[in-house]
Amino acid sequence: MNVLILGGGGVIGQKLGQALARRGHLRGQTITRLTLADVTDPAPVDGAETIRCDIADAASVAAAIPPDTDVIYLLAAIVSAHAEEDFDAGMSINMMGTLNVLERCRALGTCPVVVFSSSVAVYGGEVPDPIVDHTFLNPQTSYGTQKAIGELLVNDYSRKGMIDGRGFRLPTISVRPGKPNRAASSFMSSILREPLNGQEAICPVGPEFLHCYLSPRRCVENLIAGTEWQPEDLGMNRCMMMPGRMWSIAQVIQAMTAVAGPEPAKLIRWEPQADIQRIVNGWRFDLRPEKSIKLGLRADDSFEDNIRYYLEDDQPHA
Amino acid sequence: MNVLILGGGGVIGQKLGQALARRGHLRGQTITRLTLADVTDPAPVDGAETIRCDIADAASVAAAIPPDTDVIYLLAAIVSAHAEEDFDAGMSINMMGTLNVLERCRALGTCPVVVFSSSVAVYGGEVPDPIVDHTFLNPQTSYGTQKAIGELLVNDYSRKGMIDGRGFRLPTISVRPGKPNRAASSFMSSILREPLNGQEAICPVGPEFLHCYLSPRRCVENLIAGTEWQPEDLGMNRCMMMPGRMWSIAQVIQAMTAVAGPEPAKLIRWEPQADIQRIVNGWRFDLRPEKSIKLGLRADDSFEDNIRYYLEDDQPHA
Repeated sequence: MNVLILGGGGVIGQKLGQALARRGHLRGQTITRLTLADVTDPAPVDGAETIRCDIADAASVAAAIPPDTDVIYLLAAIVSAHAEEDFDAGMSINMMGTLNVLERCRALGTCPVVVFSSSVAVYGGEVPDPIVDHTFLNPQTSYGTQKAIGELLVNDYSRKGMIDGRGFRLPTISVRPGKPNRAASSFMSSILREPLNGQEAICPVGPEFLHCYLSPRRCVENLIAGTEWQPEDLGMNRCMMMPGRMWSIAQVIQAMTAVAGPEPAKLIRWEPQADIQRIVNGWRFDLRPEKSIKLGLRADDSFEDNIRYYLEDDQPHA
Repeated sequence: MNVLILGGGGVIGQKLGQALARRGHLRGQTITRLTLADVTDPAPVDGAETIRCDIADAASVAAAIPPDTDVIYLLAAIVSAHAEEDFDAGMSINMMGTLNVLERCRALGTCPVVVFSSSVAVYGGEVPDPIVDHTFLNPQTSYGTQKAIGELLVNDYSRKGMIDGRGFRLPTISVRPGKPNRAASSFMSSILREPLNGQEAICPVGPEFLHCYLSPRRCVENLIAGTEWQPEDLGMNRCMMMPGRMWSIAQVIQAMTAVAGPEPAKLIRWEPQADIQRIVNGWRFDLRPEKSIKLGLRADDSFEDNIRYYLEDDQPHA
C-alpha cells in the first residue's frame, strides 16, 4: 500500500501524514511507502518521505505518481483569496492541476483511490438554506468554481473506472495551528490560537456571527475513514459535505474559556472590519450533510474538543 | 452588432442563423455581421457569412472571434454518445473548447455576451425528482459532466466581468429535421419525422415512455429572448433550464395524428430495444424550471405545435 499526499506541506497534509504514519495501514494493507509532496519541500514527518511536486505541471505530477501508487490524497490548492486575486494561478493549479492528477491516474490504468478535498465554498448565490446533500453548487468565487469543477471530474473519472475517487467539501477548519493567513476566515482560528498562546488577536465580526467548523484532528480522521470506503458505498456521486457543526463566535470563545480559563478571552480585541464582514456574511453555515454522516463521518462533539485538540496536538509546537 | 454562432452548422445553429438574419437586430442594435462557424463549412444561410472554426484549437477560436464581436452563441459540442465513446474528444471539444472561447473573450477585454447551450444531461444519479432550479447537477455521462463544467466556467467568467454569459439546459429537441443520429434520443424525432415523410421508423420504447421535449423553433426563440436580458436580470447564477414539456410517446403520436391524419402513425414499428431503454430510462423528465419561465422563456403550448413547426419549417427541405 503506497500512499501519496499532494499538498503534504499544508496543515491537513502534515497532520494526515502523521496520522497515517502512526496508523501504519490503510484499506486492509500495511503502508509500505508514504510520500508527502508539495510545491516546496514539506516539513519532515517521521515514517514518510518528502518530495516536491507542482500539480500545475503534468511532468511533475507524472514523476510524483509512480505506477505502484495505491492511494492519492489531492489536497494541493491555492486558497480562496489567492485564486480570486490571481485568476490564472487558480485555473492552472486548482483546475488544471486536478486534471493533471486525474489524467496521470488514467494513463497508469491502475484505478488508484483518489481522495479530493473540496470546500463548502462551492455553495452560494440565491440557493435557499439549509444546504443539503442535493443542493445546487453555485460558487461565488473562482476558488469555489474550481473546486466544483474538480468534483465533477472526480465523479466522471470514477464513473469511467479511471480512478476510485471520493471528495469532501470541508467546512472551515479550526483551530488551525501556525500563523494567520490571507484567507478571510483566518480570524476563525486566530481569535483562539493567539490568545491560547498569550497573544492578542483581532475579531472582525460580532459575537453573534454563526459559522460551521471542524477540528483538524477530526478532519483527518474523516479523510482516513472515507479512504476505507468501497465504490458500492458511494453511489452515483462521489463527492459530499464533510460534517461540521455550527457555532457562534460567542460560543467558541465560551468553549475556550471552559477549557483554558478566563485569561485568553481577554486578549481578543473586537474591531469590526467591514471588508471581512462583507465576505464572510455571504458564506453558508447551515449545512446538513446526511450522506457522509450515514457513511460514518463525524463532526466534533463540542467546540471544547476543538480547543483541547489544539492544545494536545499543536500548542507544544507553537 | 456583430454576432457569431459557434456550432452554426448544427440544427439549432442553422435555425438560429436564419432567425437572426430575418430579425436583423439584437439587443437594440442592427445586426451588421452574422457569422456561422463550424468545424466543417456550415450550410449557407441568407444574410450570414460562414467560416470554419475548431473550438478545440485556441488559435482557430481567436481567428473566429475578432475583437468587434458583440454576441457569441456557443452551441458547438460533440453529442453524448460520441463524448461517451471518445473521452478525449469530449474533453478537448466540450470542456477545453468552451474554455478556449471564454479565454479568447477574456483576452479581448470587451465583455461580449456569450450564450452557452448546456443540456438536461447535467442531471442524474440519486437526486430526487422533480428537478427544480436549485437541484444538484449530478451528470452520469461525460457529456453531461463537460456541460456542467461549462456552466461553472460561464458563471465565473461572468462574475469576473470577462463575459456577459448566460446558459440554457436544453431539453430534448423534437421534431429535429434531417437524419437519425447516434444519440439514444434519436428516435424521439425519427418516430415522427420519418412517418411524416412517408417512411417507416422504429420505436424502441413503449407508448407510456415519458420525456421532456421542446421544438427547434421555440428553442431558437428562447435563445434569442435570453440574449436580450441584462446582467441584473440574471442574478447570481447565469445558467438555467430552458422550459420544455413532458409528454408520453402515445401523446406525441396522437399529436401527429391530430395534425397529419392517421397514416403516419401506421408507419411506426414497435420494436423494444433493451439497450436504448436502459439509457433513456435513466434520463430525467420531471423538470420544473421557474427562473427561465419568470424571465419569459416558454415551452411549446402543445405537441401539435411541434408537429406543425416541423411541417412548416423543415418538411419542404426534407
